[in-house]
Amino acid sequence: MLTYELIKKDDATGARAGILHTPHGDFETPLFMPVGTQASVKAVSPDELRDLGASIILGNTYHLFLRPGMELMREAGGLHKFMRWDRGILTDSGGFQVFSLGALRKITEEGVEFRSHIDGSKKFLSPEISVAMQTALGSDIVMAFDECVPYPADHSYAENSLHRTQRWAERCKKAMTRDDQSLFGIVQGGMYKDLRSESVMRLNEMELPGYAVGGLSVGEPKEMMYEVLEYTTEMMPSDKPRYLMGVGTPDCLVEGVARGIDMFDCVFPTRVARNGMAMTHTGRLVMKNSDFTHDFCVLEEGCGCYACRNGFTRSYIRHLVRAGEIFGLRLLSLHNLWFLVNFMKDMRAAITEGRFTEFRKNFWDKYEYGKKR
Amino acid sequence: MLTYELIKKDDATGARAGILHTPHGDFETPLFMPVGTQASVKAVSPDELRDLGASIILGNTYHLFLRPGMELMREAGGLHKFMRWDRGILTDSGGFQVFSLGALRKITEEGVEFRSHIDGSKKFLSPEISVAMQTALGSDIVMAFDECVPYPADHSYAENSLHRTQRWAERCKKAMTRDDQSLFGIVQGGMYKDLRSESVMRLNEMELPGYAVGGLSVGEPKEMMYEVLEYTTEMMPSDKPRYLMGVGTPDCLVEGVARGIDMFDCVFPTRVARNGMAMTHTGRLVMKNSDFTHDFCVLEEGCGCYACRNGFTRSYIRHLVRAGEIFGLRLLSLHNLWFLVNFMKDMRAAITEGRFTEFRKNFWDKYEYGKKR
Repeated sequence: MLTYELIKKDDATGARAGILHTPHGDFETPLFMPVGTQASVKAVSPDELRDLGASIILGNTYHLFLRPGMELMREAGGLHKFMRWDRGILTDSGGFQVFSLGALRKITEEGVEFRSHIDGSKKFLSPEISVAMQTALGSDIVMAFDECVPYPADHSYAENSLHRTQRWAERCKKAMTRDDQSLFGIVQGGMYKDLRSESVMRLNEMELPGYAVGGLSVGEPKEMMYEVLEYTTEMMPSDKPRYLMGVGTPDCLVEGVARGIDMFDCVFPTRVARNGMAMTHTGRLVMKNSDFTHDFCVLEEGCGCYACRNGFTRSYIRHLVRAGEIFGLRLLSLHNLWFLVNFMKDMRAAITEGRFTEFRKNFWDKYEYGKKR
Repeated sequence: MLTYELIKKDDATGARAGILHTPHGDFETPLFMPVGTQASVKAVSPDELRDLGASIILGNTYHLFLRPGMELMREAGGLHKFMRWDRGILTDSGGFQVFSLGALRKITEEGVEFRSHIDGSKKFLSPEISVAMQTALGSDIVMAFDECVPYPADHSYAENSLHRTQRWAERCKKAMTRDDQSLFGIVQGGMYKDLRSESVMRLNEMELPGYAVGGLSVGEPKEMMYEVLEYTTEMMPSDKPRYLMGVGTPDCLVEGVARGIDMFDCVFPTRVARNGMAMTHTGRLVMKNSDFTHDFCVLEEGCGCYACRNGFTRSYIRHLVRAGEIFGLRLLSLHNLWFLVNFMKDMRAAITEGRFTEFRKNFWDKYEYGKKR
């Protein structure tokens, strides 16, 4: 079972530093979780993940349910063993992915029937099947099977959806069988305060070991996301970890932490790496840009990532990206993951040392959102 | 300057164990050189190359000449520094690639005019330009700019080509400027013993630090390749290293070593890795094969490669390959390179311990050529 220990609460904001105690180790929060969709964080090895400081990674139930499937994951002894990762794993429920299939899925109270994106075959996921799959995966944190309300959605749609999500969360709880796994409930309710409030209250009654905020970063303006996040986290219990799903740009991480979020995940760092982008404290670098042709500096001065500490230059990485060399996207993936994981550590230090507001101000002074050199 | 030290000559065959003394280290021969065409051994880091025991890697002059170009390689301080590799580098001359362009190139006595495969622009390579580029690259071993005779070719074609290759080798020697670089001549002459003999004799007169056998493994039957190799190496000086270009399957390595070859290179191990194949002492494994679905053994029992020593199973690697995950081809590349580099080390030990004939027999007893499980 997972527990959350609050170490320090910031005076001026909702930011907090804590420790997640899990069956695979104790991890300092706030933290960023790299995404390993198909039992691999794209292009990166477990050793490299450990080296860059990753503590919990995310696996996708939808993808692993389709391939290699529940039977094989059982036979393999779970995801930790299958992919050789001995720290924490959180698995999502597959809900977000099947709802994203649009016309290819049909929702009933029982669950969701859908067509596999791999071979078009008919499949079915329900709260019970999602939990069974996550049980086979053996993740430390099991996410409840929910419906992620799209944006925009009217109040009655969001309310009906929320109620189903709640009923499904209760079915998920009943389906849990392993005491080394912890179920997180997901707060939904669209952009409506009354619904978010109802969701928090009803999940809270379930006394789950942790709670996520879902249904954000789905196309709404960032200011709206921050507003919903602010009133939602204020209502959430302070003795449980809070996870903001699918968010991972530096600006959102700072503002999420400021609103009391402890855990984040996003494909962003590895996806932009594969598109030739490097993340830095001042913005993004588009490595194909000719500015870097003769640039023999590392990606970011003072960075401790594999690429920077070994002296791989911007000029070299630009060459690799242009030539389509896999090693280029590997170096950028390692850099970007290091950047985000350690950005969280820096924020945590700022919180424990009582200077988070200063950290946040410094960040915004330097950071150019979406800057593309 | 590079020198070759003969340590042990096999009694029954042409096999020999030696040491190559280079400006970037002393390397035991026979050895296999991984290919880093575009300043990167595909998907593999310099650290990983060191870990798997690689001593010399190969860089391609043609590709690096087109991108990033001679100017940038000069500015970067050479290929070692650019790609962060501190052991040996051999660069080919670009000759093989430009001749392979077929209709896109025009050969004169001065050199070869060709169209870039990247943007179609007109380019020119000559013995002097190839050496200038390899000088900028700073490779330990510079290959002479030659014409690789195709198979089949008639005697007069092979003879004319050989004579031009010889004149070009002499121009290459004159163009050399750095005393930390060593020029290797390339024996040509098609499948004709008299021409191979003439080529060896005339290159020998140039007193170069090493010699390669070119124009083999170009489509001729293997038995013919072994025959040409046998009489060619018998004529070559024994105090210089001998390099068989572009050959890297286990069977050819054993037979090449048996005929006195010291150095090999080939894209084979990394290319088949990207196609989902694993090399083993008994043949190749096609990882997509459903035989491996429930196979929780490592690729090859007793293998010390990154993938095998860390317990990544055939089942997991099969999953990665089917899912198109980069980490799958990384694991297979590391395994295949480890396999070949260490296969050479095992052969060397067999030579120094006087049991090479036994090694060769054992190999052929177990090995199924092209076996695809």
